[in-house]
Amino acid sequence: MTTSPAYDDQNVFAKILRGELPSYRVYEDAHAIAIMDIMPRGDGHVLVLPKAPSRNVLDIAVHDLENLVLAVQRVARAVKKAFDADGVTIQQFNESAGGQVIFHTHFHVIPRFEGIALKPHTGQMADQELLADQADRIKGALAGLG
Amino acid sequence: MTTSPAYDDQNVFAKILRGELPSYRVYEDAHAIAIMDIMPRGDGHVLVLPKAPSRNVLDIAVHDLENLVLAVQRVARAVKKAFDADGVTIQQFNESAGGQVIFHTHFHVIPRFEGIALKPHTGQMADQELLADQADRIKGALAGLG
Repeated sequence: MTTSPAYDDQNVFAKILRGELPSYRVYEDAHAIAIMDIMPRGDGHVLVLPKAPSRNVLDIAVHDLENLVLAVQRVARAVKKAFDADGVTIQQFNESAGGQVIFHTHFHVIPRFEGIALKPHTGQMADQELLADQADRIKGALAGLG
Repeated sequence: MTTSPAYDDQNVFAKILRGELPSYRVYEDAHAIAIMDIMPRGDGHVLVLPKAPSRNVLDIAVHDLENLVLAVQRVARAVKKAFDADGVTIQQFNESAGGQVIFHTHFHVIPRFEGIALKPHTGQMADQELLADQADRIKGALAGLG
Protein backbone atom coordinates (compact mmCIF):
# COMPACT_ATOMS: atom_id res chain seq x y z
CA MET A 1 0.00 0.00 0.00
CA THR A 2 1.33 3.46 -0.88
CA THR A 3 1.89 5.93 1.92
CA SER A 4 -0.43 8.92 1.98
CA PRO A 5 1.14 12.32 1.31
CA ALA A 6 1.64 14.47 4.42
CA TYR A 7 -0.84 17.14 5.46
CA ASP A 8 0.28 20.63 4.40
CA ASP A 9 -0.79 23.20 7.01
CA GLN A 10 -0.48 26.03 4.45
CA ASN A 11 -3.64 24.94 2.60
CA VAL A 12 -6.45 27.49 2.30
CA PHE A 13 -8.76 25.78 4.80
CA ALA A 14 -6.01 25.53 7.41
CA LYS A 15 -5.50 29.28 6.99
CA ILE A 16 -9.25 29.90 7.32
CA LEU A 17 -9.34 27.74 10.48
CA ARG A 18 -6.48 29.79 11.95
CA GLY A 19 -8.20 33.06 11.01
CA GLU A 20 -5.48 34.00 8.52
CA LEU A 21 -7.97 34.14 5.66
CA PRO A 22 -11.56 35.38 5.76
CA SER A 23 -14.60 33.19 5.20
CA TYR A 24 -18.36 33.31 5.48
CA ARG A 25 -18.72 31.01 8.48
CA VAL A 26 -22.22 29.64 8.99
CA TYR A 27 -21.63 26.96 11.63
CA GLU A 28 -19.13 26.00 14.29
CA ASP A 29 -19.01 23.29 16.94
CA ALA A 30 -16.16 21.78 18.96
CA HIS A 31 -14.96 19.72 16.02
CA ALA A 32 -16.05 21.31 12.77
CA ILE A 33 -16.89 24.52 10.95
CA ALA A 34 -19.02 25.22 7.89
CA ILE A 35 -18.30 28.04 5.44
CA MET A 36 -19.80 29.27 2.19
CA ASP A 37 -18.11 27.91 -0.93
CA ILE A 38 -16.95 31.12 -2.65
CA MET A 39 -17.15 29.39 -6.05
CA PRO A 40 -20.56 27.81 -5.53
CA ARG A 41 -22.16 25.30 -7.85
CA GLY A 42 -25.55 26.53 -6.64
CA ASP A 43 -27.17 28.90 -4.14
CA GLY A 44 -26.32 27.99 -0.57
CA HIS A 45 -23.36 25.73 -1.41
CA VAL A 46 -21.58 25.12 1.90
CA LEU A 47 -18.34 23.34 2.83
CA VAL A 48 -18.09 21.46 6.12
CA LEU A 49 -14.59 20.85 7.46
CA PRO A 50 -13.06 19.33 10.57
CA LYS A 51 -10.93 21.50 12.83
CA ALA A 52 -8.35 18.73 13.16
CA PRO A 53 -5.89 18.33 10.30
CA SER A 54 -6.38 15.58 7.73
CA ARG A 55 -6.08 15.50 3.96
CA ASN A 56 -9.31 13.67 3.19
CA VAL A 57 -11.48 10.66 4.09
CA LEU A 58 -8.61 8.31 3.29
CA ASP A 59 -6.53 9.53 6.25
CA ILE A 60 -8.96 11.23 8.66
CA ALA A 61 -9.14 9.81 12.21
CA VAL A 62 -12.28 7.85 13.02
CA HIS A 63 -13.56 10.21 15.72
CA ASP A 64 -12.93 13.26 13.54
CA LEU A 65 -14.94 11.67 10.73
CA GLU A 66 -17.80 10.75 13.08
CA ASN A 67 -17.99 14.30 14.39
CA LEU A 68 -17.68 15.75 10.91
CA VAL A 69 -20.56 13.79 9.43
CA LEU A 70 -22.87 14.95 12.21
CA ALA A 71 -22.01 18.55 11.31
CA VAL A 72 -22.69 17.67 7.67
CA GLN A 73 -26.14 16.39 8.65
CA ARG A 74 -26.94 19.56 10.60
CA VAL A 75 -25.84 21.75 7.73
CA ALA A 76 -27.77 19.64 5.18
CA ARG A 77 -30.97 20.09 7.16
CA ALA A 78 -30.25 23.80 7.60
CA VAL A 79 -29.59 24.59 3.93
CA LYS A 80 -32.70 22.67 2.91
CA LYS A 81 -34.74 24.77 5.32
CA ALA A 82 -32.97 28.07 4.61
CA PHE A 83 -33.58 27.90 0.86
CA ASP A 84 -36.79 25.83 0.96
CA ALA A 85 -34.87 23.37 -1.22
CA ASP A 86 -36.31 20.19 -2.72
CA GLY A 87 -33.21 18.13 -1.96
CA VAL A 88 -29.57 18.21 -0.99
CA THR A 89 -26.52 16.84 -2.81
CA ILE A 90 -23.49 15.91 -0.72
CA GLN A 91 -20.08 15.39 -2.35
CA GLN A 92 -16.72 14.57 -0.86
CA PHE A 93 -13.60 14.40 -3.04
CA ASN A 94 -10.38 12.53 -2.27
CA GLU A 95 -7.15 13.31 -4.12
CA SER A 96 -6.93 15.27 -7.39
CA ALA A 97 -8.28 12.41 -9.49
CA GLY A 98 -11.25 12.24 -7.10
CA GLY A 99 -12.01 15.94 -7.64
CA GLN A 100 -10.17 17.39 -4.63
CA VAL A 101 -8.55 20.83 -4.96
CA ILE A 102 -7.82 21.82 -1.35
CA PHE A 103 -6.14 19.15 0.75
CA HIS A 104 -7.95 19.58 4.03
CA THR A 105 -10.90 17.18 4.40
CA HIS A 106 -14.24 18.73 3.45
CA PHE A 107 -17.76 17.81 2.46
CA HIS A 108 -19.75 19.82 -0.08
CA VAL A 109 -23.40 20.35 0.94
CA ILE A 110 -25.49 21.81 -1.87
CA PRO A 111 -29.22 22.60 -1.70
CA ARG A 112 -31.00 21.41 -4.83
CA PHE A 113 -34.13 22.49 -6.65
CA GLU A 114 -36.33 20.55 -9.09
CA GLY A 115 -35.23 21.24 -12.66
CA ILE A 116 -32.07 23.18 -11.74
CA ALA A 117 -28.77 21.46 -12.53
CA LEU A 118 -25.58 22.08 -10.61
CA LYS A 119 -23.52 24.84 -12.20
CA PRO A 120 -20.17 23.74 -13.64
CA HIS A 121 -16.95 24.58 -11.81
CA THR A 122 -16.18 27.91 -13.46
CA GLY A 123 -13.57 29.16 -10.99
CA GLN A 124 -15.59 32.38 -10.73
CA MET A 125 -16.09 33.98 -7.33
CA ALA A 126 -19.69 34.57 -6.30
CA ASP A 127 -20.93 38.06 -5.48
CA GLN A 128 -19.83 38.88 -1.92
CA GLU A 129 -23.12 40.43 -0.84
CA LEU A 130 -25.00 37.40 -2.14
CA LEU A 131 -22.73 35.05 -0.15
CA ALA A 132 -23.14 37.16 2.99
CA ASP A 133 -26.93 37.12 2.59
CA GLN A 134 -27.00 33.37 2.03
CA ALA A 135 -24.76 32.84 5.05
CA ASP A 136 -27.21 34.79 7.19
CA ARG A 137 -30.12 32.68 5.95
CA ILE A 138 -28.28 29.47 6.83
CA LYS A 139 -27.29 30.76 10.27
CA GLY A 140 -30.92 31.65 10.88
CA ALA A 141 -32.06 28.18 9.84
CA LEU A 142 -29.45 26.54 12.09
CA ALA A 143 -30.63 28.63 15.03
CA GLY A 144 -34.21 27.54 14.33
CA LEU A 145 -33.30 23.85 14.10
CA GLY A 146 -31.54 24.03 17.49
CA MET B 1 -40.69 22.86 8.73
CA THR B 2 -42.17 20.28 6.36
CA THR B 3 -42.46 16.72 7.60
CA SER B 4 -40.23 14.16 5.90
CA PRO B 5 -41.99 11.47 3.88
CA ALA B 6 -42.19 8.07 5.58
CA TYR B 7 -39.67 5.29 4.89
CA ASP B 8 -41.04 2.73 2.40
CA ASP B 9 -39.74 -0.75 3.26
CA GLN B 10 -40.46 -1.98 -0.28
CA ASN B 11 -37.52 -0.04 -1.75
CA VAL B 12 -34.84 -2.02 -3.58
CA PHE B 13 -32.19 -1.68 -0.87
CA ALA B 14 -34.60 -2.83 1.85
CA LYS B 15 -35.28 -5.92 -0.28
CA ILE B 16 -31.54 -6.50 -0.75
CA LEU B 17 -31.00 -6.15 3.02
CA ARG B 18 -33.74 -8.75 3.64
CA GLY B 19 -32.23 -11.07 1.01
CA GLU B 20 -35.27 -10.77 -1.24
CA LEU B 21 -33.15 -9.42 -4.10
CA PRO B 22 -29.61 -10.45 -5.04
CA SER B 23 -26.59 -8.17 -4.83
CA TYR B 24 -22.82 -8.30 -5.09
CA ARG B 25 -22.06 -7.74 -1.42
CA VAL B 26 -18.46 -6.68 -0.73
CA TYR B 27 -18.64 -5.65 2.91
CA GLU B 28 -20.78 -6.18 5.99
CA ASP B 29 -20.49 -5.12 9.61
CA ALA B 30 -23.01 -4.88 12.44
CA HIS B 31 -24.50 -1.67 11.06
CA ALA B 32 -23.87 -1.44 7.32
CA ILE B 33 -23.35 -3.33 4.10
CA ALA B 34 -21.63 -2.38 0.85
CA ILE B 35 -22.73 -3.67 -2.55
CA MET B 36 -21.66 -3.12 -6.14
CA ASP B 37 -23.67 -0.46 -7.99
CA ILE B 38 -25.14 -2.45 -10.88
CA MET B 39 -25.30 0.72 -13.01
CA PRO B 40 -21.79 1.93 -12.20
CA ARG B 41 -20.38 5.32 -13.16
CA GLY B 42 -16.92 3.75 -13.14
CA ASP B 43 -15.08 0.52 -12.33
CA GLY B 44 -15.48 -0.46 -8.69
CA HIS B 45 -18.44 1.83 -7.97
CA VAL B 46 -19.81 0.69 -4.59
CA LEU B 47 -22.84 1.70 -2.53
CA VAL B 48 -22.65 1.74 1.27
CA LEU B 49 -25.94 1.50 3.15
CA PRO B 50 -27.03 1.27 6.77
CA LYS B 51 -28.94 -1.81 7.91
CA ALA B 52 -31.37 0.37 9.85
CA PRO B 53 -34.14 2.04 7.88
CA SER B 54 -33.88 5.73 6.94
CA ARG B 55 -34.62 7.63 3.76
CA ASN B 56 -31.46 9.70 3.59
CA VAL B 57 -29.11 11.95 5.56
CA LEU B 58 -31.98 14.30 6.36
CA ASP B 59 -33.72 11.72 8.59
CA ILE B 60 -31.07 9.14 9.54
CA ALA B 61 -30.42 8.65 13.28
CA VAL B 62 -27.14 10.08 14.56
CA HIS B 63 -25.62 6.74 15.59
CA ASP B 64 -26.61 5.12 12.30
CA LEU B 65 -24.91 7.94 10.41
CA GLU B 66 -21.76 7.68 12.53
CA ASN B 67 -21.52 3.95 11.92
CA LEU B 68 -22.29 4.37 8.24
CA VAL B 69 -19.56 6.90 7.57
CA LEU B 70 -16.96 4.60 9.12
CA ALA B 71 -18.04 1.86 6.71
CA VAL B 72 -17.77 4.44 3.90
CA GLN B 73 -14.19 5.18 4.95
CA ARG B 74 -13.26 1.50 4.99
CA VAL B 75 -14.77 0.95 1.58
CA ALA B 76 -13.10 4.08 0.17
CA ARG B 77 -9.68 2.83 1.27
CA ALA B 78 -10.47 -0.65 -0.07
CA VAL B 79 -11.58 0.43 -3.55
CA LYS B 80 -8.55 2.71 -3.87
CA LYS B 81 -6.31 -0.24 -3.06
CA ALA B 82 -8.26 -2.84 -5.07
CA PHE B 83 -8.10 -0.84 -8.28
CA ASP B 84 -4.84 1.03 -7.59
CA ALA B 85 -6.93 4.16 -8.03
CA ASP B 86 -5.59 7.73 -7.96
CA GLY B 87 -8.50 9.05 -5.93
CA VAL B 88 -12.01 8.40 -4.68
CA THR B 89 -15.21 10.38 -5.23
CA ILE B 90 -17.94 10.08 -2.60
CA GLN B 91 -21.48 11.23 -3.35
CA GLN B 92 -24.63 11.11 -1.26
CA PHE B 93 -27.97 12.22 -2.67
CA ASN B 94 -31.01 13.38 -0.72
CA GLU B 95 -34.47 13.48 -2.31
CA SER B 96 -35.14 13.37 -6.05
CA ALA B 97 -33.96 16.92 -6.64
CA GLY B 98 -30.73 16.01 -4.86
CA GLY B 99 -30.15 13.07 -7.21
CA GLN B 100 -31.67 10.28 -5.08
CA VAL B 101 -33.42 7.38 -6.86
CA ILE B 102 -33.75 4.73 -4.13
CA PHE B 103 -35.07 5.98 -0.81
CA HIS B 104 -32.89 4.07 1.60
CA THR B 105 -29.86 6.08 2.72
CA HIS B 106 -26.70 5.30 0.76
CA PHE B 107 -23.29 6.69 -0.08
CA HIS B 108 -21.69 6.23 -3.50
CA VAL B 109 -17.97 5.40 -3.32
CA ILE B 110 -16.27 5.56 -6.71
CA PRO B 111 -12.57 4.90 -7.40
CA ARG B 112 -11.15 7.53 -9.74
CA PHE B 113 -8.28 7.57 -12.21
CA GLU B 114 -6.34 10.51 -13.66
CA GLY B 115 -7.89 11.61 -16.95
CA ILE B 116 -10.96 9.38 -16.72
CA ALA B 117 -14.28 11.15 -16.17
CA LEU B 118 -17.24 9.57 -14.42
CA LYS B 119 -19.55 7.88 -16.90
CA PRO B 120 -23.01 9.43 -17.22
CA HIS B 121 -26.03 7.71 -15.64
CA THR B 122 -27.07 5.59 -18.60
CA GLY B 123 -29.39 3.22 -16.75
CA GLN B 124 -27.49 0.32 -18.35
CA MET B 125 -26.64 -2.72 -16.24
CA ALA B 126 -22.96 -3.61 -16.06
CA ASP B 127 -21.76 -7.03 -17.20
CA GLN B 128 -22.44 -9.51 -14.38
CA GLU B 129 -19.08 -11.28 -14.61
CA LEU B 130 -17.28 -7.95 -14.48
CA LEU B 131 -19.21 -6.94 -11.36
CA ALA B 132 -18.49 -10.29 -9.70
CA ASP B 133 -14.79 -9.95 -10.48
CA GLN B 134 -14.66 -6.39 -9.15
CA ALA B 135 -16.51 -7.46 -6.00
CA ASP B 136 -13.87 -10.16 -5.41
CA ARG B 137 -11.08 -7.61 -5.80
CA ILE B 138 -12.70 -5.29 -3.26
CA LYS B 139 -13.30 -8.13 -0.78
CA GLY B 140 -9.65 -9.08 -1.14
CA ALA B 141 -8.54 -5.52 -0.48
CA LEU B 142 -10.80 -5.26 2.58
CA ALA B 143 -9.33 -8.47 3.97
CA GLY B 144 -5.83 -7.08 3.43
CA LEU B 145 -6.63 -3.76 5.11
CA GLY B 146 -7.92 -5.61 8.20
